[in-house]
Amino acid sequence: MAVSYTLQELASLVDGELSGNPDLQIRGLNGLEYAAADEITFITSEKKADELTGCKAGAVIVPRMEIDIDMPCIKVENPDLAAAVIHNHFLRKDFQAKGILQPTCMGENCHIPEKVTIGPMVSIGDRVAIGENVTIHPGVIIGSDCVIGDDTVVHANVSIADRSIIGDRVILHAGVSIGSDGFGYATDKQGQHHKRPQVGNVRIDDDVEIGANSCVDRAAFGTTRIRSGVKIDNQVMVAHNVDIGENSILVAQTGIAGSTTLGKNVVLAAKAGVAGHITLGDRCLVAAMSGVHNNLKDDSVVGGHIAFDIKKWRRANASFARLPEMIKELRVLRKQVDQLLKELGRGEDRSDKKRETE
Amino acid sequence: MAVSYTLQELASLVDGELSGNPDLQIRGLNGLEYAAADEITFITSEKKADELTGCKAGAVIVPRMEIDIDMPCIKVENPDLAAAVIHNHFLRKDFQAKGILQPTCMGENCHIPEKVTIGPMVSIGDRVAIGENVTIHPGVIIGSDCVIGDDTVVHANVSIADRSIIGDRVILHAGVSIGSDGFGYATDKQGQHHKRPQVGNVRIDDDVEIGANSCVDRAAFGTTRIRSGVKIDNQVMVAHNVDIGENSILVAQTGIAGSTTLGKNVVLAAKAGVAGHITLGDRCLVAAMSGVHNNLKDDSVVGGHIAFDIKKWRRANASFARLPEMIKELRVLRKQVDQLLKELGRGEDRSDKKRETE
Amino acid sequence: MAVSYTLQELASLVDGELSGNPDLQIRGLNGLEYAAADEITFITSEKKADELTGCKAGAVIVPRMEIDIDMPCIKVENPDLAAAVIHNHFLRKDFQAKGILQPTCMGENCHIPEKVTIGPMVSIGDRVAIGENVTIHPGVIIGSDCVIGDDTVVHANVSIADRSIIGDRVILHAGVSIGSDGFGYATDKQGQHHKRPQVGNVRIDDDVEIGANSCVDRAAFGTTRIRSGVKIDNQVMVAHNVDIGENSILVAQTGIAGSTTLGKNVVLAAKAGVAGHITLGDRCLVAAMSGVHNNLKDDSVVGGHIAFDIKKWRRANASFARLPEMIKELRVLRKQVDQLLKELGRGEDRSDKKRETE
Repeated sequence: MAVSYTLQELASLVDGELSGNPDLQIRGLNGLEYAAADEITFITSEKKADELTGCKAGAVIVPRMEIDIDMPCIKVENPDLAAAVIHNHFLRKDFQAKGILQPTCMGENCHIPEKVTIGPMVSIGDRVAIGENVTIHPGVIIGSDCVIGDDTVVHANVSIADRSIIGDRVILHAGVSIGSDGFGYATDKQGQHHKRPQVGNVRIDDDVEIGANSCVDRAAFGTTRIRSGVKIDNQVMVAHNVDIGENSILVAQTGIAGSTTLGKNVVLAAKAGVAGHITLGDRCLVAAMSGVHNNLKDDSVVGGHIAFDIKKWRRANASFARLPEMIKELRVLRKQVDQLLKELGRGEDRSDKKRETE
Repeated sequence: MAVSYTLQELASLVDGELSGNPDLQIRGLNGLEYAAADEITFITSEKKADELTGCKAGAVIVPRMEIDIDMPCIKVENPDLAAAVIHNHFLRKDFQAKGILQPTCMGENCHIPEKVTIGPMVSIGDRVAIGENVTIHPGVIIGSDCVIGDDTVVHANVSIADRSIIGDRVILHAGVSIGSDGFGYATDKQGQHHKRPQVGNVRIDDDVEIGANSCVDRAAFGTTRIRSGVKIDNQVMVAHNVDIGENSILVAQTGIAGSTTLGKNVVLAAKAGVAGHITLGDRCLVAAMSGVHNNLKDDSVVGGHIAFDIKKWRRANASFARLPEMIKELRVLRKQVDQLLKELGRGEDRSDKKRETE
Repeated sequence: MAVSYTLQELASLVDGELSGNPDLQIRGLNGLEYAAADEITFITSEKKADELTGCKAGAVIVPRMEIDIDMPCIKVENPDLAAAVIHNHFLRKDFQAKGILQPTCMGENCHIPEKVTIGPMVSIGDRVAIGENVTIHPGVIIGSDCVIGDDTVVHANVSIADRSIIGDRVILHAGVSIGSDGFGYATDKQGQHHKRPQVGNVRIDDDVEIGANSCVDRAAFGTTRIRSGVKIDNQVMVAHNVDIGENSILVAQTGIAGSTTLGKNVVLAAKAGVAGHITLGDRCLVAAMSGVHNNLKDDSVVGGHIAFDIKKWRRANASFARLPEMIKELRVLRKQVDQLLKELGRGEDRSDKKRETE
């Protein structure tokens, strides 16, 4: 907690341009409203410079901009990123191995290094390999034949089923379910559903983070795959045999149906849904609450209940409220055109058409 | 279980007008279909008086109405509320402290009063303060530096992360996650996401109830706040730095993105979503499955994928199915108007416009 | 694992027509991409026959079709079902009772047969009856007065509240919540919500499967009922007093509000929502992300935010993107018709109407 860096040290850390006393001692990073005189804060755009008024921070990380800031600052291209780097720098600490805290239940032939913190109230199956500096919070249940990589953190009450493979520096938040059976049945003539055994597994690569109460189901055959750097928010559902490309982001309450493949750096905004057996290219962006039913090319940006091009969707949405007046106007036009046609002696054949829009 | 009240006692309890034998002994409250001769039941509106036919209850709570009921009754303004009050009166009982049931794991310097029921299979971190008459069901994991108020009930397998503050008479249902990290990253040029440390906490005020498997994330900085009397259904997601006003109701599967503020007595119907960094005024009502993207004034009532005024939305929705026939009618009108223009010698300049609607 | 059947034996098991060496030894079933020479695979339709090229399986289950397959095969009417039956046949094994694994906490007067596998880290309340061949995975919390039928599997960290009744061969996946309180309040004049006690329970019939982190709430009065053969995916919410008919399917992230009844073999696709106090007939099908607000007759197929007939909904959806051009076209038509009316001497009374569509 007594850690402290000079403003110069922090500026160097993020390749920033320093303005103000380079020897200023900074003891932490905090939000604009909360920062004290020995802390650094940050604004993410020039527009937010006003919000610095009244801010008590000792220094501020700012974007490269025209405006002069009347306090010590570090100018960087991406203040959001610089703040994250500096904040993580302040918070980093050596791993504190507490060992295996009882009661805990270990299976046979597990590989557990000395430098771990596990439990209490943890159950681990047979033949599980756990990496260095791993933290398994209380209440976690791990099945047999699982692998958990170095520096991974598994929070309270997470369930990891047999044969799941989890990489390094992964974070699984409270209540996550990894490796539950996929949802697959064959239905007979009587309408009864026969379970299709789900004999595959889940593999989660390095640097993945998965939010509270999210689920990643095991594959029917093969592997459900979450590739490195993917960030998944709370209450997200990833079905069996899905493959999520590197650095993709799934915001809260999204769902992806079975056997769908996402490219790299895809973003699904909150509550979006993606149908099964399709492919979304790299860097696709799906608006919140939208449903994707077809393959998307790289860099597609879509929205809507049945999602399509987001610009078109926004325009269509903006027009939606006008539907009732459009119907009224159509009716007026219909009458007037009928009248005009009649006056020109050709109105008689319109009676059927007219009824259609009533 | 042998508790019994006279009809007169129950009527007094809810300021009701009694009709029938005031000394009638009533031993419980039950639903219309289930109530026995020594139980009282209730109907919530005059329209439901028919449903009393065949009902075996000994008495009934009814709204003040014209119709005469042919059984002992208590007339009140709000039968729904009176039934809740009477039912709770029958069910109330002294807290039964069972102490700390083993196995349980307690951290250091915790404050646990004698009158509690905790565990088994519970893990509690360091410096946790627990109030009087608290029930912690089995499987609950509580981090360090948490506070849990008097008379609070934490159901099975709930996870409460470090530094969460929970008030009096709070109910957290099975699988709830309190205080998981908010979802925040800064993305570099290579498209990799750097975690923004989530160093704030969660504070839940008195009389809040949170449904099974719901999540309330900790703040990035500061506090995610659920104010007193808020009722949250199952599988709801409350993101970091959200502030939910008193007595608001979040129905199942709703989600609120980061840093959004809800006023008092707001209602989000099922599966609604609210975008981040906006404010909903007091008593706003959001229809089920609707998405709110902008600030809402007090008493707004909205609906729709991109929510707007609910009356307009309902009208637009009611017209939605007619889109295909509208397109057809537009095409017919186009042809007829072109013909009319042509006959009046001005049809030639329309060919381009015509194509637009094909 | 050394189990092996002849192709003839497998064909007989599913009433299939064998082509190729009947004595071929098959040791398992696998997906097209994964199957080895001693395994059988399957294709579900004639169209997928191409995908057999390069497949290394020793045999294949195929639909009855014209095309000749250049490898040993079993022809059946429903290859999906036959594959499920054969796969389950390979995987079936005698129940391995491991008894009660410590630490576990048992209440009083429970009935636990010898042939079970329970725990560790399991807590079971008082007067719980557990059937033969039941598996209770670690971290499961079961309240008092529950019944769990034969051959049922309860996965890690499931919470089952008091008085829940669970049938035979039920599978509850990780993190499921059974029997949490329904969401019911009566609101007073001050806008405060008074809890309506939820004194009913949950009953789950035979052969039901419920996916990870799904919730089934207890009834206010009476019973929330999931009838036999129902299959529920992950993160599904079933509210109090719902009654779900036999063999219905609820795909991931669906939600059903209180007191709604579903018929037999209903399918709710992903993220669908069904309002409270309504009835859906047998075999109704609700499209993904759709909201049902009214009763549906048997065999209804619906879609949409406010769901209606799916064919009409699809057509309306297909027209949605054209709204902006329709508005434009209406404006052009308006001008032209006004001009025509004016030329025929009747344009003056249109000025008000015109403004409406601007």
